[in-house]
Amino acid sequence: MPSTRALSLPAKGAPFTPTTIERRSLRDNDVRIDIRFCGICHTDLHFGHDDWGGTFFPLVPGHEITGVVSEVGDAVTEFGVGDRVGVGCMVNSCGQCVPCASGEEQYCTEGFVKTYSSRDHDGTVTLGGYSQSIVVADRFVLRIPDDLELAGAAPLLCAGVTVYSPLRRWQAGPGTNVGVLGMGGLGHLGVKIAAAMGAEVTLLGRSPKKKDDALSFGAARFVDTRENAELTGLAGHFDLLINTVPAALDLDTHLGLLGLGGTLVNVGAPSDPVASYNVFSLLSARRGIAGSSIGGIRETQDTLDFCAKHHIASEVEVIPADRVPEAWENLSGVRYRYVIDVATLGTP
Amino acid sequence: MPSTRALSLPAKGAPFTPTTIERRSLRDNDVRIDIRFCGICHTDLHFGHDDWGGTFFPLVPGHEITGVVSEVGDAVTEFGVGDRVGVGCMVNSCGQCVPCASGEEQYCTEGFVKTYSSRDHDGTVTLGGYSQSIVVADRFVLRIPDDLELAGAAPLLCAGVTVYSPLRRWQAGPGTNVGVLGMGGLGHLGVKIAAAMGAEVTLLGRSPKKKDDALSFGAARFVDTRENAELTGLAGHFDLLINTVPAALDLDTHLGLLGLGGTLVNVGAPSDPVASYNVFSLLSARRGIAGSSIGGIRETQDTLDFCAKHHIASEVEVIPADRVPEAWENLSGVRYRYVIDVATLGTP
Repeated sequence: MPSTRALSLPAKGAPFTPTTIERRSLRDNDVRIDIRFCGICHTDLHFGHDDWGGTFFPLVPGHEITGVVSEVGDAVTEFGVGDRVGVGCMVNSCGQCVPCASGEEQYCTEGFVKTYSSRDHDGTVTLGGYSQSIVVADRFVLRIPDDLELAGAAPLLCAGVTVYSPLRRWQAGPGTNVGVLGMGGLGHLGVKIAAAMGAEVTLLGRSPKKKDDALSFGAARFVDTRENAELTGLAGHFDLLINTVPAALDLDTHLGLLGLGGTLVNVGAPSDPVASYNVFSLLSARRGIAGSSIGGIRETQDTLDFCAKHHIASEVEVIPADRVPEAWENLSGVRYRYVIDVATLGTP
Repeated sequence: MPSTRALSLPAKGAPFTPTTIERRSLRDNDVRIDIRFCGICHTDLHFGHDDWGGTFFPLVPGHEITGVVSEVGDAVTEFGVGDRVGVGCMVNSCGQCVPCASGEEQYCTEGFVKTYSSRDHDGTVTLGGYSQSIVVADRFVLRIPDDLELAGAAPLLCAGVTVYSPLRRWQAGPGTNVGVLGMGGLGHLGVKIAAAMGAEVTLLGRSPKKKDDALSFGAARFVDTRENAELTGLAGHFDLLINTVPAALDLDTHLGLLGLGGTLVNVGAPSDPVASYNVFSLLSARRGIAGSSIGGIRETQDTLDFCAKHHIASEVEVIPADRVPEAWENLSGVRYRYVIDVATLGTP
């Protein structure tokens, strides 16, 4: 089997180690991709730290992958060598259940196969995009539109679709007021995408130094959530709040910002996932709390196409592989996504 | 001003006292109603016990009122003497805000004026339906269809519309699976109405002795929520769960019963309103938690008309006024709503 360079965590608590891993020989529907860039997602850290238990070590993280097709299986018709492509959080699913059949593989009732740290249907454990090559079945490969740079496109495969999906589902658009809570990797794309959809966008955050960025990304205003007067001035204002904040949130205060029938959608996966609210915060204006997880393959392609059309990419800081440990230590300091240039992993 | 007999709680903790209260002289848009029946709602007890603070004493509870028009103001065109009518939870609202303008007075941004224990726009404190007569502005008066008995119709004004509204909003109907949590006043009407809408209805409760009733009201099955195996067998089954249980609920277990995009709607107002959930319960299938509060006047009329058409009334136990204290002590024991025959209050 072909081997490739990768950045691996050999065990829980062990440091990153450059290594060589094997990728499978092509099956009929497989696409081999020369990876160029891979984003660093906060979820990578949760798996690396085994925050939720069950991480498979050695771990090669990475599910915001862009690159170029280097080889295709005999039955592949949609992709050819040289095509610019991407891979997100999923590399397999049952394909049979109701969610899969409706293009929402992320909710596969069997559980989708994650791009890393997941046992695939053939029994192997998946290894992600902190590497120079990956083999993925064609139905989980996305096409990167010509107008998108590969580095800035990589975070769209996870962070981008994660905010795009609920913005579409809850119908952000002209005449709607959307609030984005937190402006990291997800939040900054949330602001850009919601604004491009035509919504009035407010960034609710705790870092006034991000205000100028928020406005440049299309936000109509920045609100400092530590300033109660600013917050309460927006009581009942929003139709939709996209919560990208990974930490605990004062849910009742934020629910109070929603107008009649408004919804607060959680898209982040916090370390401490238990949240509480007062039922009256919901009853008083038919409000809702929901959760949304990435998006299906079709919707991920929609995200890429939408972003290309509206000239939206992630703000990225491209780093070499040897800076990954430092990036993990300082994830909240990046504006707004670290992306690994995997050529720096050297050659096998 | 005309006086009328009423059942009053003079102060917090004091016993019910039959008394005489005054009702205002008619304004141009007022309707005077000879009350025949008034349902006992769990909310009456919360106010009587001042559970949420702010109860105005002396308190005359009651917001499930049916009766007959005895007098109308000069500008009233929709109602005439002898009409069978009802009054629910609201007797006034600002009439100007977005919710009011869209017929959702229950979400009036100024706060609607409650039928009892509320300060009306003229400064008076409202007194409810545990009395023989009430004066209400015509736009808050409902018409009771001929096919409905006044006793069985009374609980539709609060309990009925409280379940009807979310069933409509979340589109219960043929092909949808609806679960009703708890079968008291709200729950039993939830089962009847959801079944009449064409949904497959499951009653989730803790009293197997209510199983036969649930099936007779139109439920396809009864599930004992204390039996874990029964519950987990329904994982992912429901599109909509209507939670009428006033006590704390294991939210995560119940959220797991929802399929992709399903919603759990809280309609009850619990004594302890703080609830907690795990965000992953939402993320894993784009689920939601929402709250819904009674319904607007138009929707309350829809509820009455729908129930008349489908021969739905509340199961009631009609009691004389002197049994109200006992009924309050034993509210969970009734099948399924106590309704006071206010003629038993005597004459002024």
